[in-house]
Amino acid sequence: MLYHLFDYLQECCDFPGAGVFQYISFRAAMAVITSLIITLLFGKRWIRYLNRKQVGETIRNLGLEGQLEKEGTPTMGGLIILNAILIPTLLFANLYNIYIILMLFTTVWLGMIGFADDYIKVFRKNKKGLPGKYKVLGQIILGLVVGMTMYFNDGIVIKEKIADPLVIEQMMMDGEKVVPFSGEEVKSQKTTIPFFKNNELDYKILISWIGEEAENWAWIIFIPIVILIISAVSNGANLTDGMDGLATGTSAIIGATLAVLAWVSGNIIFADYLNIMYIPNTGELTIFISAFVGACIGFLWYNSYPAQVFMGDTGSLAIGGIIAVFAILIRKELLIPILCGIFLVESLSVIMQVSYFKYTKKKFGAGKRIFKMSPLHHHFQILGYAEPKIVQRFMIVGIMLAVLTIITLKLR
Amino acid sequence: MLYHLFDYLQECCDFPGAGVFQYISFRAAMAVITSLIITLLFGKRWIRYLNRKQVGETIRNLGLEGQLEKEGTPTMGGLIILNAILIPTLLFANLYNIYIILMLFTTVWLGMIGFADDYIKVFRKNKKGLPGKYKVLGQIILGLVVGMTMYFNDGIVIKEKIADPLVIEQMMMDGEKVVPFSGEEVKSQKTTIPFFKNNELDYKILISWIGEEAENWAWIIFIPIVILIISAVSNGANLTDGMDGLATGTSAIIGATLAVLAWVSGNIIFADYLNIMYIPNTGELTIFISAFVGACIGFLWYNSYPAQVFMGDTGSLAIGGIIAVFAILIRKELLIPILCGIFLVESLSVIMQVSYFKYTKKKFGAGKRIFKMSPLHHHFQILGYAEPKIVQRFMIVGIMLAVLTIITLKLR
Repeated sequence: MLYHLFDYLQECCDFPGAGVFQYISFRAAMAVITSLIITLLFGKRWIRYLNRKQVGETIRNLGLEGQLEKEGTPTMGGLIILNAILIPTLLFANLYNIYIILMLFTTVWLGMIGFADDYIKVFRKNKKGLPGKYKVLGQIILGLVVGMTMYFNDGIVIKEKIADPLVIEQMMMDGEKVVPFSGEEVKSQKTTIPFFKNNELDYKILISWIGEEAENWAWIIFIPIVILIISAVSNGANLTDGMDGLATGTSAIIGATLAVLAWVSGNIIFADYLNIMYIPNTGELTIFISAFVGACIGFLWYNSYPAQVFMGDTGSLAIGGIIAVFAILIRKELLIPILCGIFLVESLSVIMQVSYFKYTKKKFGAGKRIFKMSPLHHHFQILGYAEPKIVQRFMIVGIMLAVLTIITLKLR
Repeated sequence: MLYHLFDYLQECCDFPGAGVFQYISFRAAMAVITSLIITLLFGKRWIRYLNRKQVGETIRNLGLEGQLEKEGTPTMGGLIILNAILIPTLLFANLYNIYIILMLFTTVWLGMIGFADDYIKVFRKNKKGLPGKYKVLGQIILGLVVGMTMYFNDGIVIKEKIADPLVIEQMMMDGEKVVPFSGEEVKSQKTTIPFFKNNELDYKILISWIGEEAENWAWIIFIPIVILIISAVSNGANLTDGMDGLATGTSAIIGATLAVLAWVSGNIIFADYLNIMYIPNTGELTIFISAFVGACIGFLWYNSYPAQVFMGDTGSLAIGGIIAVFAILIRKELLIPILCGIFLVESLSVIMQVSYFKYTKKKFGAGKRIFKMSPLHHHFQILGYAEPKIVQRFMIVGIMLAVLTIITLKLR
């Protein structure tokens, strides 16, 4: 809202200094600082408040060392994260920007679902929380909203780079000035994919066998993919959130990588230099994701080992969903298996453990296990590694995956 | 050396694929990967070897909780870091580049001094290690070498940006094409400083009162500043290295920031967009600092709480010196008080503690303390914070300082 205020002051009366609010870099910096202030300064009070209300997590007893010390640590700290994302975005982003609107919707929607889950667990003392079918339904609705908006909204376009050397040659011979991305703004289902020609994939190719109508029916393949990605990342973040600082730290690393990707995708000079897709208006998303990174880092202050607060489903469902939707909007969703590799491996460890147990139980009568315990981080804990060691090593792997993600953009 | 091999293959016979070695981004990525492999794969063996040789640190008994568990943890892990910096640089950097030569000299020189210190402590069982005067002498010699090379070597130049609007207007009226940085390469004692006009400071201004000869005598002010900075950062890193992962983690953050600064300073497109000083040939330094960051992150794998190895002075003296010299070479040394704020505060806490103790002892007969214990991290430990918590909070502050450092470049 400050953005709109200063935009108005700039327009109407050339208010001194108001122009600086036009810069994405300035507003992104303000968003980080604001979210850090919110988490660091108000976090302490909220933790005290949650402690008074006795919003302690009821810890499943897994027989792990140091586990009972965690009994009574307040949960629902995700509320701190949500506020630290929403307030700076409302203050510093352009609220008419379609991408910002989608991200605000995602944050509030998944935050509400996660909150309902935590509320039922903590205050109704019902350990199962919100029934799984409602969570799935919520993720499907979000996927529909995001997918349909991306497909049908006229504001969501990309600019094609003139990659055809013949066209460029012709333009130069005609004496025209050749500007990268001088092509028109087009609706497109293109996304970024490593190792492919030009690093791009158009979803309509996947149904090209239906003939010329493919263009009009690409949403049939696109929307289910969006729903799948949102559910997968959201649940992955939820499973990863089982050790002090683990989900928060890895999410901060993922968020910082997404910030870089959004900034270069929305900046015509950098998009040209790095030879990646230029997507008009996504630069504004840098402000949202800066607030996200600030919120994670600020929350880590209290959430790192030994934690004074847990984020709960209020935090983890929203964090996962935000990462998924954000990657979809900047058309980097196919990089998620690399970038969010920690979430992926944690999810796979649970799926493999459960499937193998069921399979062996059916076949041999007694269930066998692949890991000592799933999700994967508990496996290492039983092997005798200290909790902060596991968390820091997972974060180091997370940093490597982030670097790998950025490197793939330059590979072809 | 691989760089020179492929450069030769490219020159002589257009060897397929050899051209990729021309790209700084490719070689920087290879340097990170190589240094990670060296630390992660060989680190384990080296720790086993050090353990066998009984290179355990003799811990000063400070009466702190959990301290005695550290007795016997091997030190001199800095050797792992040094190898993981030197080998990738020798493989992938242009070894004729004057900046690379200076960085290799810095690493080997300070590594040797730190190693001598550790060797005396561990094998001669002399807790004082190398006498302080030799360390200081080593830092002075390094400062002289770096300062004189920067001042007198013809390869170390900057390109002036044509900032004068009148000159640009004249060039445009003459029909000339205006290119940023189209000025000549010049010798200069300019450095980057925030909040100043054009964000630049020329050291010769500091002695401008001597008149027209200032240009020729600027080294009298420049070289002592270089020596001071090297000593300060080197000792700061040494003092910070008192908790598992603390010096390693903060150095990784500082290194990553320096990598960004070197890359943009040596890239004419980014230097122009960000409106910072363009320094030809410093792009090559990105390869060195990438190896440095990989070495720190890889070492953190074993050095994070609870640590299996300490870096010792072999590591900390070299790490501090590398950061100082690197910042000087890319003319960002006046940003060090912000970027290396953790080192600064740790050093100041010791200086304040000792001075105040001496002062009060002289004045009142009994020495008083400002902190419970110095360096600062032990103060928080006595206040009851867990060691991994202190380390992670220091690292969060380090991240904030890194962001602040980059923001200052855009402020004026």
